Amino acid sequence: MDEKVWSGRFHEPVSELVKQYTASITFDQRLAQCDIQGSLAHAQMLQQAGVLSVEDLSAIKAGMQEILQEIAAGKVEWSVDLEDVHMNVERLLTQKVGDAGKRLHTGRSRNDQVATDIRLWLREEIDRVVVLIRDLQSALVDLADKNAEVVMPGFTHMQVAQPVSFGHHMLAYVEMLGRDGERMLDCRHRVNRMPLGAAALAGTTFPIKREMTAQLLGFEAICQNSLDAVSDRDFAIEFTAAASILMMHLSRLSEELIYWMSPRFGFIDIADRFCTGSSIMPQKKNPDVPELVRGKSARVVGHLMGLITLMKSQPLAYNKDNQEDKEPLFDTVDTLVDTLRIYADMMRGVSVKPENMRAAVLEGFATATDLADYLVKKGLPFRDSHEVVARAVRLAEEQQQELSELSLDVLQSFSSLIDEDVYQVLSPEGSLNARNHVGGTAPAQVRAQVARWREYLQSV
Amino acid sequence: MDEKVWSGRFHEPVSELVKQYTASITFDQRLAQCDIQGSLAHAQMLQQAGVLSVEDLSAIKAGMQEILQEIAAGKVEWSVDLEDVHMNVERLLTQKVGDAGKRLHTGRSRNDQVATDIRLWLREEIDRVVVLIRDLQSALVDLADKNAEVVMPGFTHMQVAQPVSFGHHMLAYVEMLGRDGERMLDCRHRVNRMPLGAAALAGTTFPIKREMTAQLLGFEAICQNSLDAVSDRDFAIEFTAAASILMMHLSRLSEELIYWMSPRFGFIDIADRFCTGSSIMPQKKNPDVPELVRGKSARVVGHLMGLITLMKSQPLAYNKDNQEDKEPLFDTVDTLVDTLRIYADMMRGVSVKPENMRAAVLEGFATATDLADYLVKKGLPFRDSHEVVARAVRLAEEQQQELSELSLDVLQSFSSLIDEDVYQVLSPEGSLNARNHVGGTAPAQVRAQVARWREYLQSV
Amino acid sequence: MDEKVWSGRFHEPVSELVKQYTASITFDQRLAQCDIQGSLAHAQMLQQAGVLSVEDLSAIKAGMQEILQEIAAGKVEWSVDLEDVHMNVERLLTQKVGDAGKRLHTGRSRNDQVATDIRLWLREEIDRVVVLIRDLQSALVDLADKNAEVVMPGFTHMQVAQPVSFGHHMLAYVEMLGRDGERMLDCRHRVNRMPLGAAALAGTTFPIKREMTAQLLGFEAICQNSLDAVSDRDFAIEFTAAASILMMHLSRLSEELIYWMSPRFGFIDIADRFCTGSSIMPQKKNPDVPELVRGKSARVVGHLMGLITLMKSQPLAYNKDNQEDKEPLFDTVDTLVDTLRIYADMMRGVSVKPENMRAAVLEGFATATDLADYLVKKGLPFRDSHEVVARAVRLAEEQQQELSELSLDVLQSFSSLIDEDVYQVLSPEGSLNARNHVGGTAPAQVRAQVARWREYLQSV
Amino acid sequence: MDEKVWSGRFHEPVSELVKQYTASITFDQRLAQCDIQGSLAHAQMLQQAGVLSVEDLSAIKAGMQEILQEIAAGKVEWSVDLEDVHMNVERLLTQKVGDAGKRLHTGRSRNDQVATDIRLWLREEIDRVVVLIRDLQSALVDLADKNAEVVMPGFTHMQVAQPVSFGHHMLAYVEMLGRDGERMLDCRHRVNRMPLGAAALAGTTFPIKREMTAQLLGFEAICQNSLDAVSDRDFAIEFTAAASILMMHLSRLSEELIYWMSPRFGFIDIADRFCTGSSIMPQKKNPDVPELVRGKSARVVGHLMGLITLMKSQPLAYNKDNQEDKEPLFDTVDTLVDTLRIYADMMRGVSVKPENMRAAVLEGFATATDLADYLVKKGLPFRDSHEVVARAVRLAEEQQQELSELSLDVLQSFSSLIDEDVYQVLSPEGSLNARNHVGGTAPAQVRAQVARWREYLQSV
Repeated sequence: MDEKVWSGRFHEPVSELVKQYTASITFDQRLAQCDIQGSLAHAQMLQQAGVLSVEDLSAIKAGMQEILQEIAAGKVEWSVDLEDVHMNVERLLTQKVGDAGKRLHTGRSRNDQVATDIRLWLREEIDRVVVLIRDLQSALVDLADKNAEVVMPGFTHMQVAQPVSFGHHMLAYVEMLGRDGERMLDCRHRVNRMPLGAAALAGTTFPIKREMTAQLLGFEAICQNSLDAVSDRDFAIEFTAAASILMMHLSRLSEELIYWMSPRFGFIDIADRFCTGSSIMPQKKNPDVPELVRGKSARVVGHLMGLITLMKSQPLAYNKDNQEDKEPLFDTVDTLVDTLRIYADMMRGVSVKPENMRAAVLEGFATATDLADYLVKKGLPFRDSHEVVARAVRLAEEQQQELSELSLDVLQSFSSLIDEDVYQVLSPEGSLNARNHVGGTAPAQVRAQVARWREYLQSV
Repeated sequence: MDEKVWSGRFHEPVSELVKQYTASITFDQRLAQCDIQGSLAHAQMLQQAGVLSVEDLSAIKAGMQEILQEIAAGKVEWSVDLEDVHMNVERLLTQKVGDAGKRLHTGRSRNDQVATDIRLWLREEIDRVVVLIRDLQSALVDLADKNAEVVMPGFTHMQVAQPVSFGHHMLAYVEMLGRDGERMLDCRHRVNRMPLGAAALAGTTFPIKREMTAQLLGFEAICQNSLDAVSDRDFAIEFTAAASILMMHLSRLSEELIYWMSPRFGFIDIADRFCTGSSIMPQKKNPDVPELVRGKSARVVGHLMGLITLMKSQPLAYNKDNQEDKEPLFDTVDTLVDTLRIYADMMRGVSVKPENMRAAVLEGFATATDLADYLVKKGLPFRDSHEVVARAVRLAEEQQQELSELSLDVLQSFSSLIDEDVYQVLSPEGSLNARNHVGGTAPAQVRAQVARWREYLQSV
Repeated sequence: MDEKVWSGRFHEPVSELVKQYTASITFDQRLAQCDIQGSLAHAQMLQQAGVLSVEDLSAIKAGMQEILQEIAAGKVEWSVDLEDVHMNVERLLTQKVGDAGKRLHTGRSRNDQVATDIRLWLREEIDRVVVLIRDLQSALVDLADKNAEVVMPGFTHMQVAQPVSFGHHMLAYVEMLGRDGERMLDCRHRVNRMPLGAAALAGTTFPIKREMTAQLLGFEAICQNSLDAVSDRDFAIEFTAAASILMMHLSRLSEELIYWMSPRFGFIDIADRFCTGSSIMPQKKNPDVPELVRGKSARVVGHLMGLITLMKSQPLAYNKDNQEDKEPLFDTVDTLVDTLRIYADMMRGVSVKPENMRAAVLEGFATATDLADYLVKKGLPFRDSHEVVARAVRLAEEQQQELSELSLDVLQSFSSLIDEDVYQVLSPEGSLNARNHVGGTAPAQVRAQVARWREYLQSV
Repeated sequence: MDEKVWSGRFHEPVSELVKQYTASITFDQRLAQCDIQGSLAHAQMLQQAGVLSVEDLSAIKAGMQEILQEIAAGKVEWSVDLEDVHMNVERLLTQKVGDAGKRLHTGRSRNDQVATDIRLWLREEIDRVVVLIRDLQSALVDLADKNAEVVMPGFTHMQVAQPVSFGHHMLAYVEMLGRDGERMLDCRHRVNRMPLGAAALAGTTFPIKREMTAQLLGFEAICQNSLDAVSDRDFAIEFTAAASILMMHLSRLSEELIYWMSPRFGFIDIADRFCTGSSIMPQKKNPDVPELVRGKSARVVGHLMGLITLMKSQPLAYNKDNQEDKEPLFDTVDTLVDTLRIYADMMRGVSVKPENMRAAVLEGFATATDLADYLVKKGLPFRDSHEVVARAVRLAEEQQQELSELSLDVLQSFSSLIDEDVYQVLSPEGSLNARNHVGGTAPAQVRAQVARWREYLQSV
């Protein structure tokens, strides 16, 4: 028996190679719950619309309940002959409830069905991702709170720039993750629209009630054009773009963690349970997790590129190309979820080494800008002040001294505006505390931001 | 004379090759207006904060006014020695107003300055893009209105699927562009936050009033973390991702226009003024514009890839890598603006050939689903009905006939449920009108959508 | 018992989440055969170098033989605790042969081991890919041979340009695949170099004989720098780039097959066994395979982008990021192999409809260039001749006639150089046969190319 | 006057917007020399084939000579009305030599002409790139030679792994660049094939001699299929892929230079002339060049993505999309050439700080593997020996000592096989010298590799 539902029009069965190549059941079976959820709402609407009888609806409900249990129990054998999750579920149902099952596909097509399934699934995953983002933010806020006063060198161009608070540095990533959360929620609105009712591409001749189905399934709105509804994969691209940016943020933090844990920096340590060793070098303790996250950011970017390329130049409405949307989307979600979960855990296992950070601050003329600002406050135009300090730095460097190690005489040889009080502005802590405005690195500001974020995170 | 503002610390001048390689003035000069706008707000705030005198502020305002005029008149010679637009403008200003110019850079850095400039610039460009999107939607809505009753074959897998209204088909793109506009506006909120005040990376020791500057510049909010403020390029990536999706939509429409204008289809013609000929083949009239749009979608996707890769794994805070954000962003905006503008124009020059479309509908058993639905309505379960029609199609195809050309006897040999009234459902117009629900292709629905969009487009 | 081989240095076991996140055994188990092949050569060399005893070598050989059999029989249970295929195989071996197994890892590291495994594996896969390329070329050459005289419209800009032979069109793809084969073989040289002996990153203190191991494993050369040897993933990127170009070629052919099978073109049919139907539209026969190939080209491009991004900015030598090279590489190979195999099969199931092709030639002034050339041969400069024909086409189009349908009088009104003999050059076959030079579309040239390719394909 | 050469068939002139949007003259004018070179060979062949008279050929030669001079003198005003470089040059020629100019385009089309121009141009650029690769290799080999004995920590996972020679580290990049050169030359073979003679897409009716033209232009071979000849852009993608890998290598070296110059590492310094300062922080000396190279690697990867996406799914033969191949290709070449040139220069300005490197080696148990190997040589299986050393490292770390600082008693408490001679293997230099096999880091091996590369670089 050829099991294909559409075989009546064909003169020969599909080749085995083609079956394997075109079947999606190996990966779309994870949509089964969503598929059934969608079918139940569709059936309920069909009954209200007078297309299905009350008996049929009951039979379908009962059958689907059984199928859900069998899936949960791992008892379902998915068939490649039946191509995809939709046909598999329909066949299971028909085996259980007969004609009622054969009536379920009235007024819809796999084209609008699969689009509905993915949206239901992705909506749920976005909600999961957002919770995980909040949890990671929470871990970072805790670190920021604990280390608001810890001074480390702020780098630009990987050269020591100015002292910053380690807490402030952690909060930079909380901001990034905040935007990531916003993007996820913006995207969710565009995911949460219902394509069901578009049928194959043009709508259906049955008197369907799309608003009712949408309400049953929790959709905010319905897709207003059937051709667009079945061919639109914007939401998958937009989600993957947001995921790529998020992973890029974590790749940046990972880069820093990796360097900070390198013995030359020695700014932090990551708990042993997040590291692995070497098969050959007995001394090694490697920060595998951040390295892998850095690597996995590339994986997600690859999926984004694949998905955009996939859709480029496709004529309307549905083409089989679209089946290739699922694996990259699924893998993006899995990578994101696993990475966020492990990252929050790991950040809670980071220990900070303030003494090493402070030592590094004292190595790179970190307070030269403070000296320049000091001169400005005494009346020198900034551009002239900058030049004065640059010359002082050049001398200090040649003498292998820090600015604070230059004597007042020497400092005054660069500008007579310099006085005893200069040594206060040249200390890391003085520098830190002086940047006391919204967004600045002063510990007072860090604490204010911690409070602001805590309030926000508790409210969501 | 070495003109570098930071030369005091260096032992040798920058090599000529390096100057050329690292200078951005060749492309960032287009930010000059925004740079001056930002500087004026910064100066005004500094004066309020007591850092600049009233006289300095007046001098700066007057000087900047002159510079703006000189730029407009094309009189400014940008200097590669001065690296970028910021240093060029500052030098011009200092030449005009002396010490006041040297005081302008107090409490800021090029790191927060450039981030502010780009955001001001991009905010304006987004507004321009949104207007152009609306105009293109408007052109498509007009086409939809005029062609609501024109029946064409709806394709899936490029095989004739079901009859659709050409107007309905146009509206599918109006929906896509609608989402593009949403994404642009969502992105705008994240663009419209002010980094100024972050200075180099840590904030500044001057008593700046960031909310005041933000208000002067029309920013919705200020960036809450200085490290994030100078290193964040999310907005450029997010914008380019949205632009890539928009261009992908236009590449899809372009693909269709190109095929529809191919003589085998002959569904449309594009006015001569949008086409070009061949240097060798005298008969050619080529749809260059949609072809180029299809090609340019790849260009924008390339920029997206470049921008994400650029930021991957960069440690905080500012690195010179970031300078590479501008050219892809500028080119993305230019491509988008040019493409939207020409596209709206071109769509207004599209003429439709309804007779060729109708002929094509009659070639591919487009109303087979209608026959299946007909049987369902007579009581057959959909899955059985599908099988019955598949067999009828197979026969018709072997006899090189359309379904409507089969006699009632022949049709009844497949199912006794079939009656005289079947021939109504087998006509393209019958099929079209039967899909009369929200999102369906029935002309009545098309008109309703046209009205909805018109109202929306007039309201924005 | 914690099974980690490197646990002696750690204070706590690896977290379960980290184990799952960092383990590669779920996907690198497919390298097991290559891993064992490499280990056997390594052991043989170590014995020759006096590092392993004859007894140890015998034990290792016997143990590995058993393991290979167990793998083939599906009896091996891969352990996530043991991270990867290398540690799994080593543990299996040690369980079987004790100390000899513990001695095997002497003078190497997983870093050079995995690089060796992948290269052995990829070398074999490239050879498989090249054979499949040849087979697809062969199918296309057969089609070209059978259809050398079949005339179809050659398109540029999807407008009818000039008549071409369908065989000639098929041979264009044979050329592309020829270059793909070249690229695969060029890449193979760079794959086929042995990293083994680089150990962790610096080489080893044991007196290894790398040339011997290389010879045993069939490598052309050895990597000359240990740091480069363990960190180099060029070969994976280069292979994936070559694969992307190949898939791009097939996406182009797929695009054409899809359109040619669309009823408006009707140029070809694809055998039923390569097509599928619709769950809702009973008449549908969809060219799923070419559509999916078009889609899968995007997947491979995504992998290429992922792999390049992965390596960007990584410091030497080995970083965990590199583990992310395997899944995209494996999936690229699988996609390529499956696609090539199914494509050759499918092209053998393509049937050509010459009458539809010829009808299409007669629709677009396909021989206008021939008329221009005709005038040039009578003495008119080409540029003037082009202009003359353009005007004739314009008239013909307005009258809805083809050029060959214009009377001699009318034609002569455009140029007095036109004579009775013009009607020969205006026929599709005349046009075809006139392009009789190397690379031209004349059937004689097509046959010559078929012969050239047949000779080549038999020789490899 | 409408200047379009193909205007005879059109009813209205091209719109100004379309002219700007579709014209390529703004960027393809750089192909002018190659265009003329190709035209001269084409004309010479046409004369030999009896299509052009001797007089026409002379006129064309003289006219082109003048045009070349005018271009060199910057006197040519390129016209957007004439679309591209080909039409501009032809018009200039016709203005100078009349009918001979109008006869030049006989037997060719812009489709094969532009493909020929780009290949001539790219062939020359590849040769330039290869010379620049060799020069950079040369600079690195010199650095390796000078620093063969300088010991630095070799890192894996950015953790200290084993001591390596700085010279050895430099040679890793020489190897990478060696492969880059190979790829460029492999690609060159596929660039260096002549499309000319394919005309628009099908060949020409004139008796052209393609082998003659190919010989005149130095092509290795001619494209064997006209459809492929005009539509093939593989060479541009392949070149850009090779360029992306090269840039990725330089991004890796850049990443290392940036970190090595960070004060925490302090391994190297880059001469002032390759660095720039800060507008706000007077002490800053930033490694702009490597940062920008790291950034520009993303730019080239973006172009690769753009080019592949461009070609995806395009039907044969020529489509206007292809015009979008030029800008990314041109920019890739320019970026590559500028980057290679500046990089070689900069590497010659790198100064090494051996004392800092050695200090770093002593911080991370770099010789633990040497201790493990030592035990193996005394009879312990490697896996047991690894475990013994791991425990020793754990103790040493807890006591904040290096392995070489542990007393013999303590060491022997881990294994009785340890003896006085262990302290030799625990020194960085002992470790270095012990890795004395091909590819190993021993200074003797470094010198051998330097000699091998010097010989090679002199031979090319």
